[in-house]
Amino acid sequence: MTYCVGVLLDEGMIFASDSRTNAGIDNFAKFCKMTVFERKGERAIVLLSSGNLAGTQAIISVLTQRGEDPDNKASLWKARTMFDMANLVSDAMRDIERRDGPSLEASGISFNASFILGGQIRGEGQRLFRIHAEGNFIEAGGDTPYIQTGETKYGKPLIDRVIVGSTNLADAAKCILVSFDSTMRSSLSVGMPIDLICYERDSLEIRMRRRFAEGDTYFTSLHQSWSEGTRRVFRELPALVW
Amino acid sequence: MTYCVGVLLDEGMIFASDSRTNAGIDNFAKFCKMTVFERKGERAIVLLSSGNLAGTQAIISVLTQRGEDPDNKASLWKARTMFDMANLVSDAMRDIERRDGPSLEASGISFNASFILGGQIRGEGQRLFRIHAEGNFIEAGGDTPYIQTGETKYGKPLIDRVIVGSTNLADAAKCILVSFDSTMRSSLSVGMPIDLICYERDSLEIRMRRRFAEGDTYFTSLHQSWSEGTRRVFRELPALVW
Repeated sequence: MTYCVGVLLDEGMIFASDSRTNAGIDNFAKFCKMTVFERKGERAIVLLSSGNLAGTQAIISVLTQRGEDPDNKASLWKARTMFDMANLVSDAMRDIERRDGPSLEASGISFNASFILGGQIRGEGQRLFRIHAEGNFIEAGGDTPYIQTGETKYGKPLIDRVIVGSTNLADAAKCILVSFDSTMRSSLSVGMPIDLICYERDSLEIRMRRRFAEGDTYFTSLHQSWSEGTRRVFRELPALVW
Repeated sequence: MTYCVGVLLDEGMIFASDSRTNAGIDNFAKFCKMTVFERKGERAIVLLSSGNLAGTQAIISVLTQRGEDPDNKASLWKARTMFDMANLVSDAMRDIERRDGPSLEASGISFNASFILGGQIRGEGQRLFRIHAEGNFIEAGGDTPYIQTGETKYGKPLIDRVIVGSTNLADAAKCILVSFDSTMRSSLSVGMPIDLICYERDSLEIRMRRRFAEGDTYFTSLHQSWSEGTRRVFRELPALVW
């Protein structure tokens, strides 16, 4: 499993991903699931990966290689809009599935890469997509300003209660980190380090990126403050009269 | 789906269940999933049902009928301990599965009744069990003082943060109701009314039982206070320094 979140706010965007990768419960490791494609002042794009690691890594390598080739029309540096960028990711996914899918199926495994893609390209606004394993995708909007993948349920109520489009970046970042804390308490399939990016709208560059590893001072203080705050709110809730 | 919770506290026990029953998303109805077997001063037992309604209703009818027959050794009124009671529920489950299972399987459906069983019988302490669909069961203890069934993930982080064995009944009841609120926000498969029982240890009777229907004044105030309290705690969390 995995836990990734992308949030689309008036002030900017937030991206966060865990790092746990596992093949069974007796074989787990850490891999960063966050990839940044950035040309300052021109485009700032973040891709969060979920699913089979061989698949997601191959897709990212294909995207990177196509981008390095100046003659390739499918270069991510040439995508005019985030919609075009989503299509490039989708095309790379289908290419890799075409290559690896039949061999995986022969072993009873299905190709299951999926992505959260977000960011901004000069000339248009910020956009956020969830690209399904089949390569089709949805775009976040005003009604639901965030997208989760993987182990989504533990952290969802919190996000639903706190985040709306007008939430400021600092509050939303804290909320997303607490949603990771809630998820990691309950699911061994999600683990640190957590990678976090806060993107400021129209900046066209990634200025705030941080990794929270096991024992991180800030993350620990957040965990404690939230636990204490929650218990306090409970004590202050109106009492039930029987 | 369903959402049921049983909690075992030093002060007593809490039981809560939703009422949504559905056969597909275009056919849903309300059924109470909470059954009480009580003889004041002698035993107070609560059974929360999850799974196929025909199965759980049949099992409860079998338990009730066996209890009404004074010659039946498998009467729930004769069970000496809660462990014996759990075995009676398990036996009734297996009897119904033996009867209905093959016909269900012929239609590609599996028999999937399961229960949370808790309460107290004079002569022993309070006990809380989760009886799996196969009829085997686990008992809650000090490390994990609660049991959930059904749509468990949305409400779990909250319970994990607030409830320990020493939590008082009033706080725990509020916490469980908020966990229902969180779950219902995210899952259409869980719905009101919510049935709630708070059992006071060694009372051997159910003195506090309440049903919360759509628009319930207390439940609505709880929902609002919790949402506002949560947002306040977020604002007060330590800010992330980049």
